[in-house]
Amino acid sequence: MSPLGFHVLATDGAARRGRLETAHGVVDTPAFMPVGTAATVKAMTPDAVAGTGARMVLANTYHLMLRPGAERIARLGGLHRFMNWPGPILTDSGGYQVMSLSERRKLSEDGVTFSSHIDGARHELTPERAVEIQALLGADVTMVLDECTRFPVPEAEAADSMRLSMRWAARSKAAYRERPGHGLFGIVQGGAYDHLRAESVAALLDVGFDGYAVGGLAVGEGQETMFRVLDSCVGLLPADRPRYLMGVGKPDDMVGAVARGIDLFDCVIPTRSGRTGQAYTRRGVLNLRNARHRDDPRPLDESCPCPACRGYSRAYLHHLVQAKEILAAMLLTWHNLQVYQDLMADLRAAIETGTFAHFMSDFAAARAAGDEETD
Amino acid sequence: MSPLGFHVLATDGAARRGRLETAHGVVDTPAFMPVGTAATVKAMTPDAVAGTGARMVLANTYHLMLRPGAERIARLGGLHRFMNWPGPILTDSGGYQVMSLSERRKLSEDGVTFSSHIDGARHELTPERAVEIQALLGADVTMVLDECTRFPVPEAEAADSMRLSMRWAARSKAAYRERPGHGLFGIVQGGAYDHLRAESVAALLDVGFDGYAVGGLAVGEGQETMFRVLDSCVGLLPADRPRYLMGVGKPDDMVGAVARGIDLFDCVIPTRSGRTGQAYTRRGVLNLRNARHRDDPRPLDESCPCPACRGYSRAYLHHLVQAKEILAAMLLTWHNLQVYQDLMADLRAAIETGTFAHFMSDFAAARAAGDEETD
Repeated sequence: MSPLGFHVLATDGAARRGRLETAHGVVDTPAFMPVGTAATVKAMTPDAVAGTGARMVLANTYHLMLRPGAERIARLGGLHRFMNWPGPILTDSGGYQVMSLSERRKLSEDGVTFSSHIDGARHELTPERAVEIQALLGADVTMVLDECTRFPVPEAEAADSMRLSMRWAARSKAAYRERPGHGLFGIVQGGAYDHLRAESVAALLDVGFDGYAVGGLAVGEGQETMFRVLDSCVGLLPADRPRYLMGVGKPDDMVGAVARGIDLFDCVIPTRSGRTGQAYTRRGVLNLRNARHRDDPRPLDESCPCPACRGYSRAYLHHLVQAKEILAAMLLTWHNLQVYQDLMADLRAAIETGTFAHFMSDFAAARAAGDEETD
Repeated sequence: MSPLGFHVLATDGAARRGRLETAHGVVDTPAFMPVGTAATVKAMTPDAVAGTGARMVLANTYHLMLRPGAERIARLGGLHRFMNWPGPILTDSGGYQVMSLSERRKLSEDGVTFSSHIDGARHELTPERAVEIQALLGADVTMVLDECTRFPVPEAEAADSMRLSMRWAARSKAAYRERPGHGLFGIVQGGAYDHLRAESVAALLDVGFDGYAVGGLAVGEGQETMFRVLDSCVGLLPADRPRYLMGVGKPDDMVGAVARGIDLFDCVIPTRSGRTGQAYTRRGVLNLRNARHRDDPRPLDESCPCPACRGYSRAYLHHLVQAKEILAAMLLTWHNLQVYQDLMADLRAAIETGTFAHFMSDFAAARAAGDEETD
């Protein structure tokens, strides 16, 4: 019995409709977690984030350990109070950002030392320290430290890296202190090699975690490969534990992953796109920089309930983007997060009613018929 | 009888408690208008602006004529619909921005030609075109085109400039088409020369306007000179018409101006300061960049009802400013606009209850005792 509650309420094929019960509230799955890297979902107030239907957000251990510091956040009452988000929070372990953002990395069996991209200061991240930092932050869901390999990567390197991550996963579990409503997730690695993925799942199951993430995807391998990897390993994971596909993705990536049994997602796409003038719709992606919008009195999407669609024309949003106004980022981020949350709500309803196959074909048809710019 | 309703409900010394009635709603005065330069109060949604108590906003003719264009906004249903602000809007005439932002200016009796700071395109602004643009935007209050002189400026130059502005004011009035709930304001010029200010008032009264602005102040002359100029000319203005001090100011500037009979203000200080990490309080200005805030669990102001003060610590706001997060601009702008609106509400209450002198001494005492950084 895990201290983190999880119940599968309905299934439709491999797709699951579940409920995650954390110390800070319940999350209906499939669920999308907006990314709040530096303890803020960029350009959004927490009220606005919750208003889109989001129940759980992700924050980045790497960014927060460097600034303002995990001990400081702990003294200030923890991350929930610090960022004024009363709902559940999942923190990543920092491994991915160390590999992608930091400088002068030095990897060893023990962990990784690196220089901050902010001020060059030297830091160390070990499996034990990553768990400690996430406890200081007060994360509802803690992620094990892993090494994220590049793509493509030779098989021997992928195997070595995955096995190091598995040893780190076992050390993370040993360092982790259980609390009711909180959980520790292991991360399946192994690149695009199905047998390494299977070996990774077996290693994680030997240790035992409150949930299982699939990592190392959405790194350039393409949707076909990503789905093949999911096909190879998701079915090996225990049915009674939540499954989280890290860093994914675009709407069609998520629909395909739900079809393969994934419960949780996070991705910077809706927020980052909102800051670069892009708006997601069910028919494709609108680039608001495009001059064709400058006289268009229509909202982004007639049926969307978000403030951007209820109050403003495409012409106005185009104007805000051209003028580099902060309100452009605010409204487009809001819209994109609403689209992502509405997609999750529709996926949950489809699984509940046993109409998931029908939903998928409607979803594909709307995109195929789309009159919007494609992404 | 002006088509723009204005009633003085109470006075206390020279200070006035009034009510401006426009086509888009009532504005209790003294009132502060947040600046929405490019058809957005930067980093704020219209709902948030209204939530602070603001009833009327200012938009800039210069910026909007260049981008997205006045004719385009008219085709899209006017500025109120375009920017989703259902309340009253005052538009400036563009004169000030032409002088401060545009390139290759050429001034003549007819008007001013200039190059856009955005794309270099050549534009012309005449008194007639400025009135036409503001009608296309749908402004509740239209401002006459004036020439804004630098400070300091020799008397002869100030006189020539003021007299040109007075001829333009008469042409603006001739070009302006009256509509119920809408009005045209003249602008008193004359630099720091009291007799030129008096001459300017007389010229404007000869033409007759729905309200009177005092322009050409807050350009570096200092508060003492500004108050002296107000002392010299505000009393000459008709008591039954609103009086607007353009581009002012800091809280103590506004308190002193209300004491001298001013009803309306606009200024970029609360919004611009919010984007540069500065928070106004009754005790002074907090610079959130300062490291002394990094462990401070207190809100900006215990008694402030704004979201920044209800939900967040100074430590968190410091973190957001350091991390250059958009939420820093959003929350600090919100707070500053709330402080400005609350000051206006207190000023109105003090005048209504005949306690304005008492309010002024309390206001000065709070600032003198302030433990915050001064601005």
